[in-house]
Amino acid sequence: MNLLFLGTSAGVPTKSRNVTGIALRESKGKGWYLIDCGEGTQHQVLRTKLSFHSLNAILITHVHGDHCYGLPGILASAGMNGRKAPLTIVAPAGIKAWLEATCEATQLGLPFALEFICSDDLPSIEFENMAVATFKLSHGVASYAYALTEKNVDAALNIEKLIQKGVPRGPLWGQLKRGFDIEFAGETLTSHECLLLKHEARKVVIAGDNAQPELLWEACAGAQVLVHEATYTQEMAQKALEVGHSYARLVADFAESVALPNLVLTHFSPRYQLNPLASPSIEDIRKEAQSAYSGSLYLARDFLEFSLDKSGHFSEVASE
Amino acid sequence: MNLLFLGTSAGVPTKSRNVTGIALRESKGKGWYLIDCGEGTQHQVLRTKLSFHSLNAILITHVHGDHCYGLPGILASAGMNGRKAPLTIVAPAGIKAWLEATCEATQLGLPFALEFICSDDLPSIEFENMAVATFKLSHGVASYAYALTEKNVDAALNIEKLIQKGVPRGPLWGQLKRGFDIEFAGETLTSHECLLLKHEARKVVIAGDNAQPELLWEACAGAQVLVHEATYTQEMAQKALEVGHSYARLVADFAESVALPNLVLTHFSPRYQLNPLASPSIEDIRKEAQSAYSGSLYLARDFLEFSLDKSGHFSEVASE
Repeated sequence: MNLLFLGTSAGVPTKSRNVTGIALRESKGKGWYLIDCGEGTQHQVLRTKLSFHSLNAILITHVHGDHCYGLPGILASAGMNGRKAPLTIVAPAGIKAWLEATCEATQLGLPFALEFICSDDLPSIEFENMAVATFKLSHGVASYAYALTEKNVDAALNIEKLIQKGVPRGPLWGQLKRGFDIEFAGETLTSHECLLLKHEARKVVIAGDNAQPELLWEACAGAQVLVHEATYTQEMAQKALEVGHSYARLVADFAESVALPNLVLTHFSPRYQLNPLASPSIEDIRKEAQSAYSGSLYLARDFLEFSLDKSGHFSEVASE
Repeated sequence: MNLLFLGTSAGVPTKSRNVTGIALRESKGKGWYLIDCGEGTQHQVLRTKLSFHSLNAILITHVHGDHCYGLPGILASAGMNGRKAPLTIVAPAGIKAWLEATCEATQLGLPFALEFICSDDLPSIEFENMAVATFKLSHGVASYAYALTEKNVDAALNIEKLIQKGVPRGPLWGQLKRGFDIEFAGETLTSHECLLLKHEARKVVIAGDNAQPELLWEACAGAQVLVHEATYTQEMAQKALEVGHSYARLVADFAESVALPNLVLTHFSPRYQLNPLASPSIEDIRKEAQSAYSGSLYLARDFLEFSLDKSGHFSEVASE
């Protein structure tokens, strides 16, 4: 599984950071998920190997423009690029109404169907290779985190168990291996109970804007990675709370409390400059988080890509 | 007056061209007008010296997304950058409805007022230093051209006339010079008739998507420059007509027929590649237009800037 940051700035784009957009690539095949779609996300996609044809779904965390204003354009471009397959959009209800108004006002006819799933219902969604769970956060408007867990993890038959149950080697073993349950000797044997996973299912939690990281306690169970906003440092704690945002220390404390192995901070206020000698600088966010969090800490930047391998090892992918 | 192209691609952005956005800078001060605002226009503005504070108005030619999807984001960013002054938007009615739906759905509260002027009424609009006239074009949806003519052209008093009329040198001369009409000897003397313009008023016509350049006959009277789409070459004439677009030859023939001094083509289909050796290439558009047009021909590209000086001389500004 790969995580590719397409935009890492809060509120407005800067010369070096676009507004929010995150691509999560499946481990198998070319399929990917887009989490949030700020203006210019399609322009960022153009600079990657991602294809609109293999986009499985777009998940929007909340209705603020820096997380969704790229949606009409990316849909229009996917259509002009010849996409025909239906596209799932998981988003708060306001996004559905807005896209409908947009299609009508701007005469946008898409050559593919949109399948909306309303985040406000806190859906659990099963894609072919990914399970998505939704968690409610705290922000000025309804905001959500999406926990993405891989499905169809490589597995071997639990031969010991099959022999013990007396299931004869042959077609029944094949069915179990391919994920089907069987009836044998008056008993249902599920594929799940007869397989040994070769590794733990990988799980990444991607949160929208949020002033209360502790709301992610359940979401983070078994997750290797949390992607969370750290719009500010603690110096701006009052402002952060007023506008429903987190500061680095707040997120770091939470990540430490749940022994999260990997934390990626993003969605930085443009007040934090890239130059480490400037004040305030993005390094202030890093230092503050590092002081409270003992896991692996990363600060996202545009086009930074991470790999989460089968063993759960999370690391930066060297850029080309 | 300066003309700065922020986006020159039709339909979708490419790696080298954004979708439509054109900045027209006034000759006096920092004021500018934005004509069309495709997605990512605010990102392009970031790479120029243009400021959201000195933006006088946004003029949208038609409702298609590649001409307007950057509007919500640029307004939001202008607000976050501290703009307080009202902003005029000249656009088809659909844009007003769409922006209202957008503000509601995405909880966008702007710290400045929007003053809408509906293009469908073919308005003539007087800004402080610019007069704008609207002309109807031919496209799948209502599409407009805006003719922008400078006001307050440098002028000297027509002293010969004032002496002939017996107006005494003094405060009355000053009033006329500053643009006010006066009453003298029972007669109204307008500032206009008592001034000698030091140069012709500069006039630039910027057209939206359009399959019938001849509709711009009246708009182009007295204009030094026409900016017009040339989405295709003649080879694609049938497709062009089907989708309401022009091809290079069509625009060139029109520009020649009205003896237009300067023609800037833009809004190129991504099928025309930048590499002059590729086929089809953007050079095919240039060659086709050149074969029919004897004026000065320019093909726009992103960040290409032109100056239109007081003498009506139009030229590329060397990039920094």
